Amino acid sequence: MKPIYITRRETFNAAHRLRREDWSASKNEDIFGKCSNKNWHGHNFELFVTVKGTPSQETGFVMNLKDLGEIIKENVIEKIDHKNINLDVSFMQGKMSSTENLAIGIWEQMENLIKAKGGMLVKIKLVETENNFVEYFGGEEPF
Amino acid sequence: MKPIYITRRETFNAAHRLRREDWSASKNEDIFGKCSNKNWHGHNFELFVTVKGTPSQETGFVMNLKDLGEIIKENVIEKIDHKNINLDVSFMQGKMSSTENLAIGIWEQMENLIKAKGGMLVKIKLVETENNFVEYFGGEEPF
Amino acid sequence: MKPIYITRRETFNAAHRLRREDWSASKNEDIFGKCSNKNWHGHNFELFVTVKGTPSQETGFVMNLKDLGEIIKENVIEKIDHKNINLDVSFMQGKMSSTENLAIGIWEQMENLIKAKGGMLVKIKLVETENNFVEYFGGEEPF
Amino acid sequence: MKPIYITRRETFNAAHRLRREDWSASKNEDIFGKCSNKNWHGHNFELFVTVKGTPSQETGFVMNLKDLGEIIKENVIEKIDHKNINLDVSFMQGKMSSTENLAIGIWEQMENLIKAKGGMLVKIKLVETENNFVEYFGGEEPF
Amino acid sequence: MKPIYITRRETFNAAHRLRREDWSASKNEDIFGKCSNKNWHGHNFELFVTVKGTPSQETGFVMNLKDLGEIIKENVIEKIDHKNINLDVSFMQGKMSSTENLAIGIWEQMENLIKAKGGMLVKIKLVETENNFVEYFGGEEPF
Amino acid sequence: MKPIYITRRETFNAAHRLRREDWSASKNEDIFGKCSNKNWHGHNFELFVTVKGTPSQETGFVMNLKDLGEIIKENVIEKIDHKNINLDVSFMQGKMSSTENLAIGIWEQMENLIKAKGGMLVKIKLVETENNFVEYFGGEEPF
Repeated sequence: MKPIYITRRETFNAAHRLRREDWSASKNEDIFGKCSNKNWHGHNFELFVTVKGTPSQETGFVMNLKDLGEIIKENVIEKIDHKNINLDVSFMQGKMSSTENLAIGIWEQMENLIKAKGGMLVKIKLVETENNFVEYFGGEEPF
Repeated sequence: MKPIYITRRETFNAAHRLRREDWSASKNEDIFGKCSNKNWHGHNFELFVTVKGTPSQETGFVMNLKDLGEIIKENVIEKIDHKNINLDVSFMQGKMSSTENLAIGIWEQMENLIKAKGGMLVKIKLVETENNFVEYFGGEEPF
Repeated sequence: MKPIYITRRETFNAAHRLRREDWSASKNEDIFGKCSNKNWHGHNFELFVTVKGTPSQETGFVMNLKDLGEIIKENVIEKIDHKNINLDVSFMQGKMSSTENLAIGIWEQMENLIKAKGGMLVKIKLVETENNFVEYFGGEEPF
Repeated sequence: MKPIYITRRETFNAAHRLRREDWSASKNEDIFGKCSNKNWHGHNFELFVTVKGTPSQETGFVMNLKDLGEIIKENVIEKIDHKNINLDVSFMQGKMSSTENLAIGIWEQMENLIKAKGGMLVKIKLVETENNFVEYFGGEEPF
Repeated sequence: MKPIYITRRETFNAAHRLRREDWSASKNEDIFGKCSNKNWHGHNFELFVTVKGTPSQETGFVMNLKDLGEIIKENVIEKIDHKNINLDVSFMQGKMSSTENLAIGIWEQMENLIKAKGGMLVKIKLVETENNFVEYFGGEEPF
Repeated sequence: MKPIYITRRETFNAAHRLRREDWSASKNEDIFGKCSNKNWHGHNFELFVTVKGTPSQETGFVMNLKDLGEIIKENVIEKIDHKNINLDVSFMQGKMSSTENLAIGIWEQMENLIKAKGGMLVKIKLVETENNFVEYFGGEEPF
């Protein structure tokens, strides 16, 4: 049986800022620009979760998208949707809330739970605006 | 000469919350749901500004989009992009930061400036998420 | 207080066919083309529901989108999502399942329910494919 | 019977420039900016054609989209797709190739042909980039 | 000469259902949910076909997109567009009509035909809804 | 530290044609079809530039998107936006202006500049129309 990749999209809306308290206001402005605004800003994030596997003979599924959707909703969306990433999201405490770190944090929330359902998480794509996104492959380097 | 409508799109990212301090936490939750989160959330907003006029014989333009873009950037985007709508945006003070009120506030920032450049502002469309948007026609009721 | 228009988007996936049993196969093919396939075809429909009103002083809302969303889900999406429009949808019985008729049917499902919640339904936009959609204004002719 | 509005989308790719030979290079640059580049530039245009009517009892159609598609293809797309709007398109000769004038020209190509098929052309929407579009209602002013 | 990847998109609309006749109604409902509706449902599918190669010195092309488009249309779109995947599509007989199996089936229709034209099929991406898609690399595991 | 991939999108509008002067008109028409139109045509291109790296402990960034954006704007967008690819773009002289060759040319403009800022360019995706795009990995073959 040959592997195939399935992807499920979910969305969430959250506030954040990029700002180091151990830096001066002008250094924050210099490095993080408008993203350092003290009073926060926010985004509509799009999250794409990709799982690899071989389709079941019985169902034709790599993994039931209903199960994958529930894992994403319970472990990511409920923790982050309509929240402040810096203040409200436990798995982002002590880290800069860059799109890079957020994608890695989201991977870590789900990797084992997806494995427990028979799937293999292979990619997180996180779209912050129409002009930028990140892709994380769990540390693998496909290209 | 017959009228035609031109629209320019701009985007901005901002934080806000829907929460009345004169209401209990449970009433806020009941009416505003997740949007009442104390620590804010945010969106990628899309703004569409529509101007009516007749094309100039010389340029073929209702209004130079460069002029329209500058009005939008100086009077809306610079005031709201990467900001907190409730805390940072002067023209939203004292109002609920609903998409409805934000669209009306944006209209009021630009109506006269566009007129001064020979255009007639006829519509603001403000998209908050892929699932909701508002349209404001300056109080007119086209339908 | 000046009127403003809010729109909520929902999606559904459904099967249908355009085929008259009182016509020959060749006439069906001639008029409806591929849409007349006996064994059905289907679409991802996008539904945009627009309500007019004036924003409440207290909430900034024309109508709570949560209420509007519930009306759409209970009265349209649950009846039509993952269904066969010709066979399964009560409000489409005895009618051709064209996008036009479907939009009118959807309007009729919701007009009074939205009014009961204080809103005024003014437009249904129903997108069948990226290349065609219909707009219905309850019989009004805005343009 | 109540009116409803159907829209068909088509796309085309074309080159053009905004440049008056009776103006100096610097005036062209001043008014038209990058759009005045002597050697042309181009766009992927999206064209939305809206027709009003009442659905036929027999077909459920305001107008057969196949007929509307053929009118658009023969009278607009074939004349303009993969062409130079300034040099190759007969109905744009002697006019500035602004999006405004192009939308009006497209309307004029089709109004009577659509009427002959029993439809009523009510709107042309022409999208030049993701950041600007025009809408023409045949000189009517819906808002 | 270095390899590069070209992708062509096509769309089709089809009906299907996920339902095993050897299972009870409640097991079908339990595993396939709304997708098991007896009377079918349907989707607007988007198909992305990726071919790898080195650009020709003469044309700059990896493969003429006209040739690739014709292969896709003749061997996939004509067989599946406006059809019922379970009933009408020969290459899907005896299989569950999951997006996974459909993507694999589409690959098998075209792999050799693309090779005969000098291209190398390396990926099929099949988008079923805005919230789910699959990617198939012919059994290869790029990540 | 594990690698992650960031992507920035920019857009540009340009004219071009696919036409060999050493071929007859009919051979050009035969191979390049409408793209061979003597008087040019054009597109809204979307460019996606992907950089690999490990997030900085201090900033959470693989690379500051502001730096990446400036490299793209100065070295690609300013040279090609609102230009004629065949006539105006120095790095495309002597080559067919296919999407393939354009993507490779864009890669070559930026590879070293991105390296100098601490990033590693790993992918250029160039979208010519909604129906075709190319991806270039610097000669690497990820799949």
